[in-house]
Amino acid sequence: MKKLILSVAVVAAMLQCHAQQALGNFPLTTSPEIHADGRATFRMIAPNAKSVQLTGDFLPTQKVETPQGTFDIPGVAEMVKNTDGVWEFTTEGLKPELYSYSLIVDGVRMTDPSNVYQLRDIATITNVFLIGGDKADYYRVQEVPHGTVSKVWYESPVLGKSRRMTVYTPAGYETSGKEYPVLYLLHGMGGDENAWSELGRATQILDNMIAAGEVEPMIVVMTNGNADLEAAPGESSLGFAQPTTQLPHTMDGSFERHFPDVVNYVDTHYRTRKEKGGRAIAGLSMGGFHSLHISKENPEMFDYVGLFSAAVNPRGDEQGFYGNMEEKLARQFADAPALYWIGIGEKDFLYDENKAYRKLLDDHGYRYTYVESPDGHIWKNWRIYLTEFLPQLFK
Amino acid sequence: MKKLILSVAVVAAMLQCHAQQALGNFPLTTSPEIHADGRATFRMIAPNAKSVQLTGDFLPTQKVETPQGTFDIPGVAEMVKNTDGVWEFTTEGLKPELYSYSLIVDGVRMTDPSNVYQLRDIATITNVFLIGGDKADYYRVQEVPHGTVSKVWYESPVLGKSRRMTVYTPAGYETSGKEYPVLYLLHGMGGDENAWSELGRATQILDNMIAAGEVEPMIVVMTNGNADLEAAPGESSLGFAQPTTQLPHTMDGSFERHFPDVVNYVDTHYRTRKEKGGRAIAGLSMGGFHSLHISKENPEMFDYVGLFSAAVNPRGDEQGFYGNMEEKLARQFADAPALYWIGIGEKDFLYDENKAYRKLLDDHGYRYTYVESPDGHIWKNWRIYLTEFLPQLFK
Repeated sequence: MKKLILSVAVVAAMLQCHAQQALGNFPLTTSPEIHADGRATFRMIAPNAKSVQLTGDFLPTQKVETPQGTFDIPGVAEMVKNTDGVWEFTTEGLKPELYSYSLIVDGVRMTDPSNVYQLRDIATITNVFLIGGDKADYYRVQEVPHGTVSKVWYESPVLGKSRRMTVYTPAGYETSGKEYPVLYLLHGMGGDENAWSELGRATQILDNMIAAGEVEPMIVVMTNGNADLEAAPGESSLGFAQPTTQLPHTMDGSFERHFPDVVNYVDTHYRTRKEKGGRAIAGLSMGGFHSLHISKENPEMFDYVGLFSAAVNPRGDEQGFYGNMEEKLARQFADAPALYWIGIGEKDFLYDENKAYRKLLDDHGYRYTYVESPDGHIWKNWRIYLTEFLPQLFK
Repeated sequence: MKKLILSVAVVAAMLQCHAQQALGNFPLTTSPEIHADGRATFRMIAPNAKSVQLTGDFLPTQKVETPQGTFDIPGVAEMVKNTDGVWEFTTEGLKPELYSYSLIVDGVRMTDPSNVYQLRDIATITNVFLIGGDKADYYRVQEVPHGTVSKVWYESPVLGKSRRMTVYTPAGYETSGKEYPVLYLLHGMGGDENAWSELGRATQILDNMIAAGEVEPMIVVMTNGNADLEAAPGESSLGFAQPTTQLPHTMDGSFERHFPDVVNYVDTHYRTRKEKGGRAIAGLSMGGFHSLHISKENPEMFDYVGLFSAAVNPRGDEQGFYGNMEEKLARQFADAPALYWIGIGEKDFLYDENKAYRKLLDDHGYRYTYVESPDGHIWKNWRIYLTEFLPQLFK
């Protein structure tokens, strides 16, 4: 065994860093520090670094030119080394929102070692922090009755697989004896059955809006929309394989065909309302695509449909499973859903596709509710859409 | 808006890094790559770095001298920059185990940006990977029937709080109609209700050992042992506050006093066996302390007790709640538990405390099972203890 002399700070960091359960607690520094006026101060101990930068979705975006075209990317702020050798940056006052950020130390992007709160979006992990107030208070854990969040495996005869989903049952479900309506809430491409409860703060939104009396107590079922997978990355027999969006059987009809297996499992394992008026389906991006097509294929199943920044057009197989679009919509709207809700951001790359779809609905006189928001294809919008969609359900 | 010219790689990294849902997938590099012979190759893209090191619990430990004394700390390996500008290090063949590691880039400890699999231990996040085989196959998600894992809030009249716990119900629970035995499985200081299911792989261990017929199907209840808290960091009304071990009401009797509230909730909300022979309690470190004292205070409640690297002696309040130790043990062992299991590592800082406790038990002729393992106060040992303890329950 080599003997080394290391600084106390390095030893503290290393002792806490591995399998040895850390009985002491060694916060490196406080980052971010949220000030009462909504400013946030970020700090990073990197005495040898030449440059420490902050990038996050609260900084003004920058336009960047690449051989692939011009993109809006999150802004970058230069952090400044203070007299203690700690790099710092303080934002302007920020509006209420759940924000994400990363640090860039000498060109290497990293998470903030002083902030354990992180979210994974497909294959990327960023730190998060919350500025409370307004809608963002729905994203906080408040002292209200809390629902139960379960990871449940169901059998799909159609896919020949055991598959994992997240099920939210509202506070009081276990003992009320009542039957509850069900919202099926679907994620986008690259997401999984954890996406809505983690990135989407759906659990907190539901707890808080139900407690406030704004939303009916309901069961919310969050499936995995990748028909080829059993479960989220790290939670299936694939082990710790790299998350990817390059999955087979994505948007080829497989997920839609299997969906009655989900509804059947939920109706046989939970106290549900089993009629159309007690069922809603909504999703973001690919999940909006799934919601559109599943509700159209099963016109008797869902009385509430939510398309959040939805893909609309098939990506292949236009004539097979996704064929006869107008005929099937005619069937669905013959006994029209109580609510057909479409929301999209004005900068969303799917904006034109949604515009064309709305024209199709308009041409046939099919009624829908339309909300257009700022920004693009981002979780901020989907959380807000959820808070706007939920109060309209099951009334 | 400023216009910038950035490299495609930086743009790719930035596009995937924030709120914009990443529809493309940009794996930076493959790290770790697990070879068939159990070697692991780590890679890091840090072209400007002068030094990239790897530290992990699979490297030989080093002795380090500090003003506070001499410690064993995880080893550090120097990574080498290859011709593509990527830093690399390949281990020797590793034994089956769940391992953790971090990178150190120019002195700054960071997680591996190419590996999304991480675990939080108190306030520190490290990356993880798994070398399969032997006991480590219990830690993998296998294609077996899976139990349900729920985050459940219960009321504690004793603490005057709503509190969160993790409940595992075995595959088939929902429809079997049967009553199940219950294991209460408790974490250590600084841990929370997520510790056993995340760091401890308890969910995978239970699924796999039950499927193999080695373990009785059982409900497993994983509480939060910090009486002052509602829930794990980030999951309570404290918001995204820094995790800490400096909590009030830790090991002062509060958690033990409230524990009948947990058992009462479980017995009224799940189909449980409600007699002593259908209940077990076990825990690691502070959770072992809790298991010892809760089972001693409630001699009629638990027929199986597991002390994993347990703290034994009170830290204050020796004459109050924790007083009359011998008298209470006499009462517990008058109708002795079917199993009283003690396991500890030979390098554990609690070794002597456990030795003295075993002497006390021996002096009174109280029967127990004792297992001594290599290494110290580490999760590796607690996962192994769980696999050894479970098959002995409810037989």
